Amino acid sequence: MPASPPDTPLRYAYLGPAGTFTEEALRQVASPEEAGYLPQTDVGSAIAAVRAGEADRAVVAIESTVEGGVTATLDSLATGDPLVIVREVLVPVQFTLVAPRGVRLADVRRVSAHPHAWVQCRRWLATHLPGAVHVPATSNTAPAALLAESGGAGARLAFDAALVPPAAVGTYGLAPLAQDVADNPSALTRFVVVAPPGAVPPPTGADKTTLVVHLPDNEAGALLAMLEQFAVRGVNLSRIESRPIGDALGRYSFSIDAEGHVTDERVGEALMGLHRRCPYVRFLGSYPRADAVEPLVHVGTADADFVEARAWLARLRGGDTA
Amino acid sequence: MPASPPDTPLRYAYLGPAGTFTEEALRQVASPEEAGYLPQTDVGSAIAAVRAGEADRAVVAIESTVEGGVTATLDSLATGDPLVIVREVLVPVQFTLVAPRGVRLADVRRVSAHPHAWVQCRRWLATHLPGAVHVPATSNTAPAALLAESGGAGARLAFDAALVPPAAVGTYGLAPLAQDVADNPSALTRFVVVAPPGAVPPPTGADKTTLVVHLPDNEAGALLAMLEQFAVRGVNLSRIESRPIGDALGRYSFSIDAEGHVTDERVGEALMGLHRRCPYVRFLGSYPRADAVEPLVHVGTADADFVEARAWLARLRGGDTA
Amino acid sequence: MPASPPDTPLRYAYLGPAGTFTEEALRQVASPEEAGYLPQTDVGSAIAAVRAGEADRAVVAIESTVEGGVTATLDSLATGDPLVIVREVLVPVQFTLVAPRGVRLADVRRVSAHPHAWVQCRRWLATHLPGAVHVPATSNTAPAALLAESGGAGARLAFDAALVPPAAVGTYGLAPLAQDVADNPSALTRFVVVAPPGAVPPPTGADKTTLVVHLPDNEAGALLAMLEQFAVRGVNLSRIESRPIGDALGRYSFSIDAEGHVTDERVGEALMGLHRRCPYVRFLGSYPRADAVEPLVHVGTADADFVEARAWLARLRGGDTA
Amino acid sequence: MPASPPDTPLRYAYLGPAGTFTEEALRQVASPEEAGYLPQTDVGSAIAAVRAGEADRAVVAIESTVEGGVTATLDSLATGDPLVIVREVLVPVQFTLVAPRGVRLADVRRVSAHPHAWVQCRRWLATHLPGAVHVPATSNTAPAALLAESGGAGARLAFDAALVPPAAVGTYGLAPLAQDVADNPSALTRFVVVAPPGAVPPPTGADKTTLVVHLPDNEAGALLAMLEQFAVRGVNLSRIESRPIGDALGRYSFSIDAEGHVTDERVGEALMGLHRRCPYVRFLGSYPRADAVEPLVHVGTADADFVEARAWLARLRGGDTA
Repeated sequence: MPASPPDTPLRYAYLGPAGTFTEEALRQVASPEEAGYLPQTDVGSAIAAVRAGEADRAVVAIESTVEGGVTATLDSLATGDPLVIVREVLVPVQFTLVAPRGVRLADVRRVSAHPHAWVQCRRWLATHLPGAVHVPATSNTAPAALLAESGGAGARLAFDAALVPPAAVGTYGLAPLAQDVADNPSALTRFVVVAPPGAVPPPTGADKTTLVVHLPDNEAGALLAMLEQFAVRGVNLSRIESRPIGDALGRYSFSIDAEGHVTDERVGEALMGLHRRCPYVRFLGSYPRADAVEPLVHVGTADADFVEARAWLARLRGGDTA
Repeated sequence: MPASPPDTPLRYAYLGPAGTFTEEALRQVASPEEAGYLPQTDVGSAIAAVRAGEADRAVVAIESTVEGGVTATLDSLATGDPLVIVREVLVPVQFTLVAPRGVRLADVRRVSAHPHAWVQCRRWLATHLPGAVHVPATSNTAPAALLAESGGAGARLAFDAALVPPAAVGTYGLAPLAQDVADNPSALTRFVVVAPPGAVPPPTGADKTTLVVHLPDNEAGALLAMLEQFAVRGVNLSRIESRPIGDALGRYSFSIDAEGHVTDERVGEALMGLHRRCPYVRFLGSYPRADAVEPLVHVGTADADFVEARAWLARLRGGDTA
Repeated sequence: MPASPPDTPLRYAYLGPAGTFTEEALRQVASPEEAGYLPQTDVGSAIAAVRAGEADRAVVAIESTVEGGVTATLDSLATGDPLVIVREVLVPVQFTLVAPRGVRLADVRRVSAHPHAWVQCRRWLATHLPGAVHVPATSNTAPAALLAESGGAGARLAFDAALVPPAAVGTYGLAPLAQDVADNPSALTRFVVVAPPGAVPPPTGADKTTLVVHLPDNEAGALLAMLEQFAVRGVNLSRIESRPIGDALGRYSFSIDAEGHVTDERVGEALMGLHRRCPYVRFLGSYPRADAVEPLVHVGTADADFVEARAWLARLRGGDTA
Repeated sequence: MPASPPDTPLRYAYLGPAGTFTEEALRQVASPEEAGYLPQTDVGSAIAAVRAGEADRAVVAIESTVEGGVTATLDSLATGDPLVIVREVLVPVQFTLVAPRGVRLADVRRVSAHPHAWVQCRRWLATHLPGAVHVPATSNTAPAALLAESGGAGARLAFDAALVPPAAVGTYGLAPLAQDVADNPSALTRFVVVAPPGAVPPPTGADKTTLVVHLPDNEAGALLAMLEQFAVRGVNLSRIESRPIGDALGRYSFSIDAEGHVTDERVGEALMGLHRRCPYVRFLGSYPRADAVEPLVHVGTADADFVEARAWLARLRGGDTA
């Protein structure tokens, strides 16, 4: 694993350029003064940069309140060289509609937007720009950059307006037509910081563990049995998403966030249960929850309960059955 | 419900234009001679056309072996005015790389492709066009149409080549640079035919029932309890996908295909169980399976078993406890 | 079914003679003035009297806090001609040690007691009569009767003292050596009133339903599956006891008390589920709980929820899927 | 723990006297030449003798195909000073009806029998001695001994005939009136050899583990959860019996035989799960099955699977997440 020497600032690959939500997430992790910012054109490239040793970390969106799991992230982490998540960051999601100088809302016919941005503003667009056509952008800031390059005049652009993150308005010196146009004012995107395999961050008491699990077969019973591996040890799940394995309809991989840390006894035993019964389990890291919410620990599932039970079993096996 | 009179051919809204996979799916349902083909620019518009009474049916992709559930379809059917699925159709998925006259594979830098197409050819692209940049298209055939409009010369196009369905090559008179470039040669997309609410197609013995279910709360236990509603009546699931409800991280809606027909006793009782325990259940139709595979009926879960048990209970309640 | 005409007092078979706990239970049901008391020598005979039409009801012990299920009752009801439980009665269990005139506690070597009485006073006996030998009696009052017959002199009796119900002390004019000698001062015995099959008592809102269920096979999984038939409909169990079926080791019949009445929707559906999946289900009646405790009704399992779900399903099946 | 020195024959306490089924069981374990036979008047005394150090082992009936669990044995082992089962033995159960000289079947009015014997011959008695009265005996051989003492004349006996084990006929020189009168010709009784706590017999590959488990609370859900502790580790149960805890109606202790040995990984983890979640778990030993049937080991539950999973988890925790 190629790594930066201790004194070197860590290099972060992320979906750039300046002004993206991902950059906002990265700023929560490390300022540009204390880290290397390596903008990438897509999530896959950011993750690949870590696998190739060209970056020390990648910051990538993994889930949004509106769209759910980010396919590209989930799939990139689920297969290929192993990586682990070492941190999560939450970023509120809002959008500003921007346009070249002189364009009024009533003039807007074609709106450039990343597909996720488009979806998150659907109701606002239907109300205020009912006939507008979607011009897909490869990122939230790509249309902002094109607008800036056009000198704000808008000539020869393929669109009349664009949905961009609020941070991009200042970065690119744009003119807002409408602010806070996202349909869900409490929308969040969850980002994760991805690192090469190695030491897991120590438990904080409010942690998550992310896993990829394939089911042993095709039946509802297999999903039930998998969930029971968690339930019987008192481990709650905060996220479960199915993804097709890709070889046939009806075969699923599950992407799971479990409450707790791999060093927690109950999480460790649940993981071992999955490892024994499921054809494929990938550990994608244990890391502090951004919301710092501690899990509800059910009766008999605290670490001390496991330790005590193990000592009891050892006594029984050693002949001390009194 | 606005409906066509009996002698009028049914009008099908679908993701057009000519040459799309969706058109291939539609051709399995009705030829252009016997039905009205109403191409739409996106899945949402196709579904909206049925809701508005402008079409009698919509043909939309719902799931692919590579990408999993089609978000736009799942979300459009899960909310808004009720619609039902009346049929499913399977279409093999392949792609051809096409380009303007004179462009050689070595020249290709920018590839236009619908995001799903791009994902399905990722490995081929990484091998044969390692530095190629993705130019997102709104449909699989949009770049084919642009190529055709450009007279095959390619001047002023934003891309050098495009991934298109094999059917589009002939339709638009294009020149293939490479064929069968999808990474998974057995990839399939599953399409459904969507209709206004009304009579459910009669059971065939090999049917599916599609549902949207919200869980009563946020815990692993709630998903287990929901799956037990099926398991205890011997109903298998052929697809289960989580989708965020959209109001907060960690709240999920489940999109489910259950084996069997709403008129099957075991399916009916499972549905009633969900209806009683879950805050939201939407019935999205019972329809014949495209693969005609009959479900495994577990002991005690055939219709006759339910009928017999109901008669027994009626006798008990009537005082005939002997 | 032989039945008494309406104006005739009901005839109750019970484990006699006068002074038994069973008689105490019967007195809670009907006084000797308003009913026929038909004392029997054992539980099997009391139940047989109802089957033969010689009695209208039997009052029999079914469960005690100390000994658990009463084997003879459970087995007699589980097989043979069908009968139903129509009522339950709780009787506190205490014992008095009685002896012939002149016998002091220090003289007691042989104690006559029904085996259940012996067990319930084990600790007291170990403390106060450590070397005493058990002389088994066929009923709690048999030794009281022998004492009374002996004129209180005790000559030629095979025992020096006897454990008898408090009610027998006065009935037989005996002399108490020690009172309240049962180890558990809150011990109760639960009696049931058994009738020929026929109309089930109407629901009161605080009812029990008693069942006998055989499992489909020999595995832990079968018991789990049986319990899930109750759990998935929100039906709690207040008693579950295994009894060997008798044809091989490891084959069990389960005697179950479920909370609720056969006319409750959730109980009815659970019963139908058992009837479909288990090789044998016998309904032994629904009747008011002696303690009048109403069941906790879980969300979605009230009668109205079932009725509403059934109406919803009927609408779906009728084509009203909107 | 008082123990015999190595060269001293082991002393076995058992339900005597000569001729009992228990003695038949003991003979399978050790002949009178190689062991001390210490007959006791009841099961409780046999077990107490081991607790007191007066015997090295007790041989006691624990379960019969007809009566199910033997209450006295189950209760004695479940509470009090700890003991463990080290072996099990199966004995076929038959009965012979014996009588004093000159008594004919038609003369028999009163039949002495241990209550279990009476139950096991109920149908035969109903057919051949329909009016016969049960005179309870404290053991199967007690009436045989009384008959022998009476010199075979039967004068002053409280009974006309007795049900005794076939072995007692020769031992006591009795005259059979009828042989093989048990209703179930394949009836078996299972005996166990009980020892002071200490080294558990080594695993043979076909073992049982006996447990006493109290449930955390009073609900059906608690029993389900307890059974899942076994099911999730792939441990089957060959016996499960409920016994009232004795402090209130509706509180149960479960007596369980699990397939496998305490040193099996899957059994050990299930035991630890019970220990963590249940208010009371008593280990009553792991010992070879008398029938030598090996358990079905489910996928992922062999010892090697647990060892491998533990190594995998240790690697994850050590930072080797690749």
